[in-house]
Amino acid sequence: MKQGWQLNRKSEIPLYLQIKHLLKEKIRLGEWSIGTTLPSQRKLAQLLDVNRSTVVEAYEELMAEGLIEGVQGKGTRVVNNTWNVIQSEIDWNSYVIESTYKPSKPLIQKINEAEFSPSIIRLGTGELGKELLPIGAMNDLISNLKIEAHHLGYEEPKGSLELRQAVCKHVQAFGIHTSPSSVLIVSGALQAFQLIASGLLKQRASILAESPSYVFSINAFQSANVQLHNVPIDQIAKNPSILAKLKAQHNASLFYTIPTFHNPTGFLYTEEQRQNIVHACQSSQLPIVEDDVYRELWIDTPPPPTMKSMDQSGNILYIGSLSKLVSPGLRIGWIIGPETVINRLADLKMQVDYGASSLSQAVAERWLSSPDYYNEHVNWVRISLKERRAHFLHLLDTYFSSFATWSVPTGSFYVWVRLQKELSLHRLFDVALKNGILINPGSIYEERDASYLRLSYSYESKERIEQGMKQLASCIQSMIG
Amino acid sequence: MKQGWQLNRKSEIPLYLQIKHLLKEKIRLGEWSIGTTLPSQRKLAQLLDVNRSTVVEAYEELMAEGLIEGVQGKGTRVVNNTWNVIQSEIDWNSYVIESTYKPSKPLIQKINEAEFSPSIIRLGTGELGKELLPIGAMNDLISNLKIEAHHLGYEEPKGSLELRQAVCKHVQAFGIHTSPSSVLIVSGALQAFQLIASGLLKQRASILAESPSYVFSINAFQSANVQLHNVPIDQIAKNPSILAKLKAQHNASLFYTIPTFHNPTGFLYTEEQRQNIVHACQSSQLPIVEDDVYRELWIDTPPPPTMKSMDQSGNILYIGSLSKLVSPGLRIGWIIGPETVINRLADLKMQVDYGASSLSQAVAERWLSSPDYYNEHVNWVRISLKERRAHFLHLLDTYFSSFATWSVPTGSFYVWVRLQKELSLHRLFDVALKNGILINPGSIYEERDASYLRLSYSYESKERIEQGMKQLASCIQSMIG
Ligand SMILES: Cc1ncc(COP(=O)(O)O)c(C=O)c1O
Ligand SMILES: Cc1ncc(COP(=O)(O)O)c(C=O)c1O
Repeated sequence: MKQGWQLNRKSEIPLYLQIKHLLKEKIRLGEWSIGTTLPSQRKLAQLLDVNRSTVVEAYEELMAEGLIEGVQGKGTRVVNNTWNVIQSEIDWNSYVIESTYKPSKPLIQKINEAEFSPSIIRLGTGELGKELLPIGAMNDLISNLKIEAHHLGYEEPKGSLELRQAVCKHVQAFGIHTSPSSVLIVSGALQAFQLIASGLLKQRASILAESPSYVFSINAFQSANVQLHNVPIDQIAKNPSILAKLKAQHNASLFYTIPTFHNPTGFLYTEEQRQNIVHACQSSQLPIVEDDVYRELWIDTPPPPTMKSMDQSGNILYIGSLSKLVSPGLRIGWIIGPETVINRLADLKMQVDYGASSLSQAVAERWLSSPDYYNEHVNWVRISLKERRAHFLHLLDTYFSSFATWSVPTGSFYVWVRLQKELSLHRLFDVALKNGILINPGSIYEERDASYLRLSYSYESKERIEQGMKQLASCIQSMIG
Repeated sequence: MKQGWQLNRKSEIPLYLQIKHLLKEKIRLGEWSIGTTLPSQRKLAQLLDVNRSTVVEAYEELMAEGLIEGVQGKGTRVVNNTWNVIQSEIDWNSYVIESTYKPSKPLIQKINEAEFSPSIIRLGTGELGKELLPIGAMNDLISNLKIEAHHLGYEEPKGSLELRQAVCKHVQAFGIHTSPSSVLIVSGALQAFQLIASGLLKQRASILAESPSYVFSINAFQSANVQLHNVPIDQIAKNPSILAKLKAQHNASLFYTIPTFHNPTGFLYTEEQRQNIVHACQSSQLPIVEDDVYRELWIDTPPPPTMKSMDQSGNILYIGSLSKLVSPGLRIGWIIGPETVINRLADLKMQVDYGASSLSQAVAERWLSSPDYYNEHVNWVRISLKERRAHFLHLLDTYFSSFATWSVPTGSFYVWVRLQKELSLHRLFDVALKNGILINPGSIYEERDASYLRLSYSYESKERIEQGMKQLASCIQSMIG
């Protein structure tokens, strides 16, 4: 929204008139169609770095001209446009409201928006920070990429053959033996959810998922009218046969799991637990979607084998991604499964976007096929995460121990922090944001509103993490009094 | 499917046993789950370059082992797997069949598949061929891209600000004045359809589209349960007020149009027709989706202004893309519209794939901001298309004039060829494919099954086009007798 909002402070035109002109242009060009809510006067003043009274003056002029109207408690809206007084305009708002997809949860929308303010300290973000990204290696790989016609053209429905071959080789280390025809390249693991939801599940199908889970923070299944049933993660770990029971009860079509460095809890199923889960699902004919995007981010010891490596009957759809270890911006992930499924999802992928970026696919292939770069990077990330985790746990001990508990993750970058007193996580989110700190409240990941926060030690520098944690602790303390 | 199908002709193991082993592995690993249909014996023999009898032998062994079963007229299916005789397997087929998204039309699936056989001459493909892609320029731009953290990270919901700024500048030349907050970067124009269908339209909404139209060849709207009503393109050109009438009749939510070098007909609305259409839609409150992906591919003279430049009230959603002039593989397109719409679609885009590839976005930005490369390329494309069009029209005159008519396109790369005798386009498609030629039957683009073909002079070399056209003419002649 910042873009195009420049005032000329040397001009003889008073600032309020410049602002009026800016707003009028937006209305005239149809960018702000009738019904659009204007930014609040406070927010606009902040954005333009002027006194609020200057904005008030601009708004008053536009009201006088009949272009905008303030409604008590609802903000200011465009009610007319500049070029024609009596005219029929599309009510885009009603299009939006009546359409089929759900909007993201309001908290997620706020997070998506706040993430791009550079001054905010992002304590919840589940990505590698700048220092941990393989910028040098990528620069080498990309500048040495000899561009050929196929890099610029559309790729095959399942994705570039070279990349699928590289993925097959890559997952061998995880005990998965497969061939390129059973691999679909997706535009990030997130897209796998969308494809599965619309390509494999019927209207109002049910699926089972751990509670809490990443899957509750996104809308992919809910928007496709799929019901999500949650099962406490510790119950599954203790007693996997609960899955069979719940399958029968809800007529569930899938079990979605993040068995390795689970998001948001950091939980890791043991090998035995995995076997029991695979067995329980196999014998009750409940397919598994194994989301394994964090596997390589172990810190202490390598994780147990993939569930997929225990699957000999095409019961498991396996999801991987380059986002968590290498680069979320490449938007490259994969699904591995029986050909019947992969063919179907590939056809669907052609329907939704004609495939992932060929350029990203080429770079991903180079990355997976460059063991030197790869190993150097993954070692560096592991060492750094170990150090960052130690630092973070120290900060928790120092600032959080009087009011919170947590357990130590053995990989990835999340700490699932439990606040001992219940407090409104929404309010805490707002208070923290006002103090320049962005957190992921646990309520994003589960239906009951317990007092958890997902904090992350991967994104910000250690200095900023320290600063943020201190500040956050004091926000919490001021709320619990 | 070719992948991993290697026989060792020097081995002492007979070929049929090698084949049997290959197939058994696929079954054992769950790539071919129970219910999967095997390739036909003929096809497999061709693929492996062996006698059909060798394949028959391998199949018979597997049947004897109870792993596969032939059903008269339905091909051969996997009925059991190797590792366990009594076991419960997921019936993935029923998942696919009962799920919500429609599969692509069978013809489209065949085209998608055949496109990647290198020997096929692609006379229908709507892309620039190798010689016309800016490979050198892209190589320069990409190898000079200094990779920074933001290239590897997630981008803002609407897409990279730099790219949106570059798009704003780019579309100024088309009379569109807008700011980055009204622009959404999408993963190709195709994705715009999906976002509009699920983010702006309600269940069972109706939309109007020209007939024929590209939109009938894709499933984006149909899969979202949107009804498409077609209006003959010449009727719209002559009498735009028909749109108002049909809007009322079908309670239509949108009019989707390709006003410039229409796909598949090559049609171009005049400036006056555009004004009349914009006016008719405006006064009946029917929003327009203006798909303008071919605008820059004019050959003789620049096309009339965009409809969007005639829109002063946010009535038009404008779609552009880099696919047709620069690179389909980048998967970069944009939607320009009122902020209410753009904000909604941006939220949705975060739900489906967290944004387009950051790397593609960076390259797209560089491209749009490099006028030297840009202009040199676009001039070269125009000159080449002019030459190719002349060559193609000459071939049509020579080989097609006895049984077909067509009109001369003034831009882009399609000729909409009408066969004077009705014949089965499906059969023609199959016959042509057997002869190594891939065509786009007109029935993909319209509901009534008229005798049109969409041919293209942009993809293959002139030699291969000549060879293909000759061959195609003789296929047609053999069918019309
Ligand atoms: C468990 C899990 N799966 C999938 C994703 C999505 O990853 P991608 O960037 O590959 O879409 C995330 C990202 O946060 C995640 O935590
Ligand atoms: C009219 C039209 N719109 C959109 C597209 C899709 O383009 P993109 O590659 O940008 O998704 C095509 C491609 O054939 C097209 O012909």
